[in-house]
Amino acid sequence: MTDLRDNYIADNCSIKRALDVVGEKWALLVMREAFYGARRFDQFQARIGCARNILSERLVTLTTAELLSRVPYREAGQRERHEYRLTAKGLDLITAVIALMQWGDRWQADPDGPPVQVLHRDCGHPVEAVLRCPYDDAIVTARDLKPVPGPGAHIVPPPRTDPRRGQHQA
Amino acid sequence: MTDLRDNYIADNCSIKRALDVVGEKWALLVMREAFYGARRFDQFQARIGCARNILSERLVTLTTAELLSRVPYREAGQRERHEYRLTAKGLDLITAVIALMQWGDRWQADPDGPPVQVLHRDCGHPVEAVLRCPYDDAIVTARDLKPVPGPGAHIVPPPRTDPRRGQHQA
Repeated sequence: MTDLRDNYIADNCSIKRALDVVGEKWALLVMREAFYGARRFDQFQARIGCARNILSERLVTLTTAELLSRVPYREAGQRERHEYRLTAKGLDLITAVIALMQWGDRWQADPDGPPVQVLHRDCGHPVEAVLRCPYDDAIVTARDLKPVPGPGAHIVPPPRTDPRRGQHQA
Repeated sequence: MTDLRDNYIADNCSIKRALDVVGEKWALLVMREAFYGARRFDQFQARIGCARNILSERLVTLTTAELLSRVPYREAGQRERHEYRLTAKGLDLITAVIALMQWGDRWQADPDGPPVQVLHRDCGHPVEAVLRCPYDDAIVTARDLKPVPGPGAHIVPPPRTDPRRGQHQA
């Protein structure tokens, strides 16, 4: 992979684009609470425990990026407010959120075990995030993977300088 | 889930603990390049395109958190240097990284398609990150999930104030 990797640049990397939206702790914690059922500002605020201005900013970011949609509601005798609902784009982030949770459970949790378990509603057993080859119907590990430039790769000529000597353009 | 969710606090949330380590764009991009084969400082620097001081800091963070190990090497005629290798803990983050990439590919990529594809080495087909119930051997979606307090949950009594009125303790 090493040689191949020098043939394209990562300026349009999808991981980077994902992180531009959710590569920030509070934004992902807002998404966590949305998955756990929060809809309203004060629910998010009480459960995440962050400052209100940080929460406001993250809700704007996530709404602008269309992970959440902002929907008006009105309780009897109160002014109109808004709640935040997961969009299809937001719901689709669940795999990444659960993969992060699972990694945190394995490597960063307290000895008494994970604070939250995510169960399969049908059978009550914990779900897991895995890598799968749909062609072979096989669960695969890091060692089974081969990253290659995709159709949207920005191919560049190999650098002229020796990268070990730190003389590259950047 | 809403009522249940108010019965425990998320101070020891595994997502938050994962994000304390990798919830930052540059740290995850360093991990991306480690998965793609980078080992040496100048490889990381040229491929990520970040400032050298940012890269230095992230390599310290990731080494301290034991996602990377720092291993000495010496090229002929040069001083001893160090390279960075994925540990088991670092390798295990691949599922989350690929889940984020896949989400970025689906929702944030250019029209010409993903810049990188991660293939199953055995068969050459792209792998996917999925949620799976190991008990049923079923691929599940967000709608099939039920989050519940786990063995490490910090249970708290329900709040006395009405959370809609913003009078909670935080």
